[in-house]
Amino acid sequence: MELLREHGYDAVTVAEIAERAGLTRRTFFNHFDDKRDLLFAGAQDLQDTTVHFVTTAAPELSPFDAALEAFTRAGAMLAELVPFERQRRTLIDSSQALQERDLVKAASLVNAVARALQVRGAPAGQARLSAATAHEIFRAAYERWSTAPASDFSELMHSTEADLRAALAGEQPSD
Amino acid sequence: MELLREHGYDAVTVAEIAERAGLTRRTFFNHFDDKRDLLFAGAQDLQDTTVHFVTTAAPELSPFDAALEAFTRAGAMLAELVPFERQRRTLIDSSQALQERDLVKAASLVNAVARALQVRGAPAGQARLSAATAHEIFRAAYERWSTAPASDFSELMHSTEADLRAALAGEQPSD
Repeated sequence: MELLREHGYDAVTVAEIAERAGLTRRTFFNHFDDKRDLLFAGAQDLQDTTVHFVTTAAPELSPFDAALEAFTRAGAMLAELVPFERQRRTLIDSSQALQERDLVKAASLVNAVARALQVRGAPAGQARLSAATAHEIFRAAYERWSTAPASDFSELMHSTEADLRAALAGEQPSD
Repeated sequence: MELLREHGYDAVTVAEIAERAGLTRRTFFNHFDDKRDLLFAGAQDLQDTTVHFVTTAAPELSPFDAALEAFTRAGAMLAELVPFERQRRTLIDSSQALQERDLVKAASLVNAVARALQVRGAPAGQARLSAATAHEIFRAAYERWSTAPASDFSELMHSTEADLRAALAGEQPSD
């Protein structure tokens, strides 16, 4: 991670990362499919955690509220990983290949949450719209948090949700 | 396109596509960066068209309504490209590489619409939430349309928007 930050993601080879970590190239590949996986090792955890929170959310919550609560709880856990998450985000933003991988992981996360909402009884269409909208609130709250990591993640989720509701209510820019 | 559909996307080489089209490999590459671009040649058009509709939307429309109207108008144009769009979608769904490219194009589209909303005066956060939510409605409406291409695309946008509003209002699955 340190090495990637010093030299930029695209300039660092797997061999250099392995050397810095005191591993042979072969050992490194036993752990990670490629260097991109190094940065996305947590994505499956995030997905599993979020799905778990959807599955265990109170049955009386609507699909959207269940998804929103799950992203809020998972995001609050993620927000404890400062400063790793900020470094990771800076690296991802520096490389087109990493941004593409990030999009793939995000799409997988939305699909997994939508499936979990369907297990709770939501029809496919409602599940997908709820999961995608809750994820967009999560994405925007996470972006806000990454520029102000001292802030409370749940608060950011609530204020971002309020912003989205205002936008859908046809609120005009106040400038 | 025909060749890709017959043999599956991953099995067809650029040389085969070029031969079928009566082009040399070199001529083919003068037109398309790689075979993935063949399927996404329309993505830049869609983005330019949508941004144009955002820019020329009535000034009194809120950012969200402007984005929604732009996606509705652009989508209605896209829906006239039956059956090309359906074949294209089937191909994309058949290949992980194409799905990744599709995600990249979608992210680019959302970013472009968000920028166009900012030009109209929306703050960055409101622009992004409005563009992403309108795009999700577009994506879902487009998916519905692709299974029932005789249906009216604008109608599908309206009913999908209503579904999203119901989901955010905490509607429970009615099963």
